Amino acid sequence: MARFLRGTDKRIGAVPGSLVFIGEHRMDQTRIRRIAYTSETMEETEHTSIADLPAPDGGVTWINVDGLHDATVLHQIGDRFGIHSLILEDVLNTGQRPAFVDGGQVLFLVVKMLRFDQEEKKGIIAEQLSVLLGDRWVITFQERVGDVFEPVRERLRNRQGRIRTWGSDYLAYALLDTVVDQYIAVVERLGERVEDLEEEILTGANHEVLEKITTYKCEMNYLRKMIRPAREAIQLFARADSDLIEDQTSPFLRDLQDIATQAAEAVDTYRDMLTDQLNTYRTAVGTNLNEIMKVLTIFAAIFIPLTFIVGVYGTNFDNVPEFRYKYGYYVLWGVLLTVGGVMLRYFHKKGWL
Amino acid sequence: MARFLRGTDKRIGAVPGSLVFIGEHRMDQTRIRRIAYTSETMEETEHTSIADLPAPDGGVTWINVDGLHDATVLHQIGDRFGIHSLILEDVLNTGQRPAFVDGGQVLFLVVKMLRFDQEEKKGIIAEQLSVLLGDRWVITFQERVGDVFEPVRERLRNRQGRIRTWGSDYLAYALLDTVVDQYIAVVERLGERVEDLEEEILTGANHEVLEKITTYKCEMNYLRKMIRPAREAIQLFARADSDLIEDQTSPFLRDLQDIATQAAEAVDTYRDMLTDQLNTYRTAVGTNLNEIMKVLTIFAAIFIPLTFIVGVYGTNFDNVPEFRYKYGYYVLWGVLLTVGGVMLRYFHKKGWL
Amino acid sequence: MARFLRGTDKRIGAVPGSLVFIGEHRMDQTRIRRIAYTSETMEETEHTSIADLPAPDGGVTWINVDGLHDATVLHQIGDRFGIHSLILEDVLNTGQRPAFVDGGQVLFLVVKMLRFDQEEKKGIIAEQLSVLLGDRWVITFQERVGDVFEPVRERLRNRQGRIRTWGSDYLAYALLDTVVDQYIAVVERLGERVEDLEEEILTGANHEVLEKITTYKCEMNYLRKMIRPAREAIQLFARADSDLIEDQTSPFLRDLQDIATQAAEAVDTYRDMLTDQLNTYRTAVGTNLNEIMKVLTIFAAIFIPLTFIVGVYGTNFDNVPEFRYKYGYYVLWGVLLTVGGVMLRYFHKKGWL
Amino acid sequence: MARFLRGTDKRIGAVPGSLVFIGEHRMDQTRIRRIAYTSETMEETEHTSIADLPAPDGGVTWINVDGLHDATVLHQIGDRFGIHSLILEDVLNTGQRPAFVDGGQVLFLVVKMLRFDQEEKKGIIAEQLSVLLGDRWVITFQERVGDVFEPVRERLRNRQGRIRTWGSDYLAYALLDTVVDQYIAVVERLGERVEDLEEEILTGANHEVLEKITTYKCEMNYLRKMIRPAREAIQLFARADSDLIEDQTSPFLRDLQDIATQAAEAVDTYRDMLTDQLNTYRTAVGTNLNEIMKVLTIFAAIFIPLTFIVGVYGTNFDNVPEFRYKYGYYVLWGVLLTVGGVMLRYFHKKGWL
Amino acid sequence: MARFLRGTDKRIGAVPGSLVFIGEHRMDQTRIRRIAYTSETMEETEHTSIADLPAPDGGVTWINVDGLHDATVLHQIGDRFGIHSLILEDVLNTGQRPAFVDGGQVLFLVVKMLRFDQEEKKGIIAEQLSVLLGDRWVITFQERVGDVFEPVRERLRNRQGRIRTWGSDYLAYALLDTVVDQYIAVVERLGERVEDLEEEILTGANHEVLEKITTYKCEMNYLRKMIRPAREAIQLFARADSDLIEDQTSPFLRDLQDIATQAAEAVDTYRDMLTDQLNTYRTAVGTNLNEIMKVLTIFAAIFIPLTFIVGVYGTNFDNVPEFRYKYGYYVLWGVLLTVGGVMLRYFHKKGWL
Repeated sequence: MARFLRGTDKRIGAVPGSLVFIGEHRMDQTRIRRIAYTSETMEETEHTSIADLPAPDGGVTWINVDGLHDATVLHQIGDRFGIHSLILEDVLNTGQRPAFVDGGQVLFLVVKMLRFDQEEKKGIIAEQLSVLLGDRWVITFQERVGDVFEPVRERLRNRQGRIRTWGSDYLAYALLDTVVDQYIAVVERLGERVEDLEEEILTGANHEVLEKITTYKCEMNYLRKMIRPAREAIQLFARADSDLIEDQTSPFLRDLQDIATQAAEAVDTYRDMLTDQLNTYRTAVGTNLNEIMKVLTIFAAIFIPLTFIVGVYGTNFDNVPEFRYKYGYYVLWGVLLTVGGVMLRYFHKKGWL
Repeated sequence: MARFLRGTDKRIGAVPGSLVFIGEHRMDQTRIRRIAYTSETMEETEHTSIADLPAPDGGVTWINVDGLHDATVLHQIGDRFGIHSLILEDVLNTGQRPAFVDGGQVLFLVVKMLRFDQEEKKGIIAEQLSVLLGDRWVITFQERVGDVFEPVRERLRNRQGRIRTWGSDYLAYALLDTVVDQYIAVVERLGERVEDLEEEILTGANHEVLEKITTYKCEMNYLRKMIRPAREAIQLFARADSDLIEDQTSPFLRDLQDIATQAAEAVDTYRDMLTDQLNTYRTAVGTNLNEIMKVLTIFAAIFIPLTFIVGVYGTNFDNVPEFRYKYGYYVLWGVLLTVGGVMLRYFHKKGWL
Repeated sequence: MARFLRGTDKRIGAVPGSLVFIGEHRMDQTRIRRIAYTSETMEETEHTSIADLPAPDGGVTWINVDGLHDATVLHQIGDRFGIHSLILEDVLNTGQRPAFVDGGQVLFLVVKMLRFDQEEKKGIIAEQLSVLLGDRWVITFQERVGDVFEPVRERLRNRQGRIRTWGSDYLAYALLDTVVDQYIAVVERLGERVEDLEEEILTGANHEVLEKITTYKCEMNYLRKMIRPAREAIQLFARADSDLIEDQTSPFLRDLQDIATQAAEAVDTYRDMLTDQLNTYRTAVGTNLNEIMKVLTIFAAIFIPLTFIVGVYGTNFDNVPEFRYKYGYYVLWGVLLTVGGVMLRYFHKKGWL
Repeated sequence: MARFLRGTDKRIGAVPGSLVFIGEHRMDQTRIRRIAYTSETMEETEHTSIADLPAPDGGVTWINVDGLHDATVLHQIGDRFGIHSLILEDVLNTGQRPAFVDGGQVLFLVVKMLRFDQEEKKGIIAEQLSVLLGDRWVITFQERVGDVFEPVRERLRNRQGRIRTWGSDYLAYALLDTVVDQYIAVVERLGERVEDLEEEILTGANHEVLEKITTYKCEMNYLRKMIRPAREAIQLFARADSDLIEDQTSPFLRDLQDIATQAAEAVDTYRDMLTDQLNTYRTAVGTNLNEIMKVLTIFAAIFIPLTFIVGVYGTNFDNVPEFRYKYGYYVLWGVLLTVGGVMLRYFHKKGWL
Repeated sequence: MARFLRGTDKRIGAVPGSLVFIGEHRMDQTRIRRIAYTSETMEETEHTSIADLPAPDGGVTWINVDGLHDATVLHQIGDRFGIHSLILEDVLNTGQRPAFVDGGQVLFLVVKMLRFDQEEKKGIIAEQLSVLLGDRWVITFQERVGDVFEPVRERLRNRQGRIRTWGSDYLAYALLDTVVDQYIAVVERLGERVEDLEEEILTGANHEVLEKITTYKCEMNYLRKMIRPAREAIQLFARADSDLIEDQTSPFLRDLQDIATQAAEAVDTYRDMLTDQLNTYRTAVGTNLNEIMKVLTIFAAIFIPLTFIVGVYGTNFDNVPEFRYKYGYYVLWGVLLTVGGVMLRYFHKKGWL
């Protein structure tokens, strides 16, 4: 499956807005976690179906759905919270490009959560997060079960900062902030490796360095593909002219946007750096080749003429007068050393030695 | 014929708006298929001339014309539906760039339908689709007979989704959605091959890889040329301030635009990837050359001096004292092995071994 | 003379608006052709001086001036039709960049007419065309005598299409349409050659291919320099908010602009293609070099050690025991074949064979 | 730690607006220097805590804080001057991207101060400067103790120019002007080295040049990352529609913006120059390789055939008639010289000699 | 001193608006030339101090100052004509970026005058020109004494064109027109050399071509740095909404802007051309290397095996049966010719011959 574009060919000609799960990871069970809180009270519950959810009371409700394969859950949520079927379709399609939709009664944001693979071999893994922000509620959909939002839950439980006293828009911000902080972390980690490469490149031509450059470039391209549209989506979210976002939350959203911009710019910087590194590596390879060829040429240019000369005196002609000279052999050595010395001086003068 | 620009040189100085077919594929017969439907009734008929078409009743009429060589048909359609001759000219010119024209009473959209050649050897094939959207009617023109719209017909027949109850704008959307889904499918398929190439590149210098990169690059360029203006055209269509598009259809058109954007961006990503791959391949070739030259240099630098030495003792001088030494031959071997060993150490120290 | 910039250094410090011919081709005689027409009548006359021109009557007058060296003609035209001296200066300067000027009472457009040299050796030739559109008159200036507008004259004579019934703006459009159609023709022809090159590139390193790439690139750059500003000028013309352009002509001008855009985009596509081709060619050259060096290395690495071995037994030491062995010579061959075989296996294993 | 992105991964999931120092350099003691002045009076004091600060009287107060690790100081400042906690968080995060925030009652600007490392080995060092401009006060935060603002203090003490008579906005301008002048100085110094490189590049292939190009490119990238957003921030500052900036200061801010633009453009120019230099260097390496290979080929192509010929006459066949010829040996030399001469002429004709 | 950025580091921390000369060329004497004219009268005088200048009467006054090192002159001018000290500072700083400032009562424009060095070795020389346009006066500052404006003076003296009858804005235009015409001349001259290079590149690898490409690229970069901001400055000047510019001058300013644009675009074209040329040159070098290596490989691959064969028969084994054969030597030649012929055919088949 193409990593840089995926999944929508299953639906050519399908009814738009029809809910078909397009993705790779199916879980046995969809897991629904609900937190309802006011500044005084807080309730955490876990459910397996939407029907079980208690009716909202005065506070803010956050529903987190892990696992997306079950279209029924989505249908029920769509019905209960009045969400357009095209938005639900986007939630199900895990190949969705990060985007923001202002649906009037609901704001919808798709972004990718990024992390390194545990074994760090397979590179960066992206998981889709859909955030729906309504009046006094937030619904989040994750592809797989994970505890990336645990710090937010902790802050809710411990009444840290403003999170319990402000509205659902601030909760949405807090969740997205976690995601964007992940971006910075992933880019920084990969970036360190790229910067470490700088040294290795000049030392020389081995395939390993080339492979690293190629791999990192590919990962950076992947990051770029994920982070840039996320930044745009967050920008649109921050600037949305919606009653769902209170004035006091605006500076936080702008800050979020700044961090996303920083991540996106760092990715571009590292991409450029990798391009430069490939050029430098190629040039270093060329320089090495020159060194190699100088060695070869010096050896060949010195010994091939000498070998020719001794070859001449290896012939079996009857009348070679030099053979009869008393010091012929020593004269030969004299000639050989002279020729060799001249060649050495020539190459020295050329600066090859 | 130039693949990236075609066909208009037949008309230098011709009267603008004159209907001359510019294209490659002529069919024996133009085929006209008509579907007229309301939410209750639906009628499918096939005709060979426009004159046969029944007058529209209350519902939506979709006329699909396969085969474009017959200018008469176009003239009749132009007359009957009141279409500007420049638009008709664009329909006939299959080298037309994807575009959108708001003609007031009629919206006109030209895009390319893309698919892989059956045998998948000749690469991607583009066929021009012209969509005319009027009040309660849609006319589509295809270069060749095909059944790409069969899923839409099925949905009409089976009353799937909203298609039977909403207006002609939704029908136009449904048709374009099919086309754009094709884009995603084609890009994804070609993209997979590009991603598969990533591995092959590092292993080494063979012309096959180079040929693949070149071919894919060319196909991606072709896709880009087709998809980018199509995206623009769809964007203009989605934002058109026209009475022909109802409010309820707008989110669907925006969704369409998002998918087209995704396809266009993926093409750009793959193009960049191919450029990177060519660079990497070139660098791998350079690295290989270094390896080859190292092998050559090591062999030459070790054996050429040795050959010179034995050459010296192959001379036929009368007075070579070494010849008379009892262990001369064994001393020779000692010298040879020493020189050879020194050379090996030298190259080992240089890191070439 | 610099092909990509020319001619204005003759006038450093000259009075702006002074009429000095800057160009290469001077004709013996300026040729003035006049066509005056209404929907009923049409009159074609030829003159050598402006003074001879009859006063305009009710219809549209088109004056075509071939040959620009005679500043007197321009002065007379300037006086008679009330044209700003800066515009006249631009008409005379054949190194003028394509541009559009809205002079209020007159619209002024400079573009380049492009064609292949007859012998097609010297590449593309550009000739400057200045179009002045006034109320019920069009004046065109060409550098040299040519019959590129003959099809338009034919349409005037034969009353084809709207040309005789619509105004001077449509005439200007018809003339420009001819020019832009030429662009498409020239780009297409050159583009075909570029596309044909695609095959040749992979086969290998010969200077001819490199020369072709370079030449075509240069021609494409030249086309770009001519077509891009022409497109802009046409765009400004099409969008000009002037009484001189009637509403009915607007769709035709927009169509003109679309065709110019298509030509400009095709040029860009071919330029990119040529850049890719140069890269591919360079890579193919590198790959070829690897092949060559493999051949050299295999020969050298196999035979140089063998030559060394036989060299050892070419020495004339008195006590070489091997010489005395009965089967010494055959053992030698055995050793040689073994060493050769080992080398062959080594290179086979490396994948070089 | 990644040099091009740093420090925010310590706070994933932390409460936004919580004050945690993110940076490398911690000092033992935060140092607070206060200057309060009117056009007549001026008072310089140094404090270790905010509580000690005297209440502002009628003049302008400038508080400079060196050392950022102590969050308490920030909290106190935030409370006393009414600054949003997100701004305080940005002050503490030394990995902050240069930015401008219009906080209504306070304008906030983060830029980097740049200087070469004392030993000039570690390259360019960036230190974060945060400037807060309020009504009749300016607060500046520096990472480390430094005397970069000493010239401004001198001007304050000596009543040079307008600084004592104009408001706090002019003080902020004067401080930023010092920073931007540093940019110019750093870019100029590095740029000189880049320009000096131009000569070295053509002379040939040594790793040192390659290393310099790579290092300077990296430094220029770093400068770019620091200066470009600083320019944007200054631009926003200069255009801010705020009561805190008086009309008379505007031309100075625009001038500041021009200088920042000049620095940013120079960086871009030098970056392009370095890219060109790498290309030129690579080409020079290729040209050198050709020279080397010509030398090798000439030697090999002349002496290898000659060695072959003498080899033929080194064979021990019984019946080689040439051996018996009286002048065989001299004929051999004739043949050798002829063959050698022919080869020399061949290479001369090829232009290799 | 860095050529692409200069001179402002002398003033870090200096009072903004303080007048310090930053430049390289100091003359012994500042030279002030004044021309005062009406349509009837004209007066040319030369002064050494501003105090000497007669008070303006009804006409237009043009004051030209050659040599900038004397800050006193500037102070006096600033006082007398009411010019902001920041503008005066820009006049003195000869490293100033071309810019336009609308100072209300005065329009200020800095551009560079460009010319080839007399000996044409040091490349292009830029000299700063500052133009101040006020009500009925123009002041120009040049770095060095020169007679570049002599043609304008001639036109003033000879009453050529409109210059004596129109206002000070037209005089400023006339002066700038001279400067921009210089741009065209310089670009054209350098461009011709670049175009001439096209031929030389394909013929082969010599360092001279590489040096030319590098030098021209550097000069083009320098031109770009001078001309592009000049174009912007002129554009702002042409579009300035100021009472100082009369309506009748506007078309001339737009024309000026067009010429500057043409120069800037030509520079870009030539820069691209040089980049292409470097690529082509590099590719030609690679192609040449292939040719060289083919020659080497053919020689080596043919003669090395042959040398091996004769080596075998140069051994001194007692029992080599071939030595005894009557025609052994002739058979050897047969074998040698056969092997040589086979190799030749092999390389012929490969297309290397």
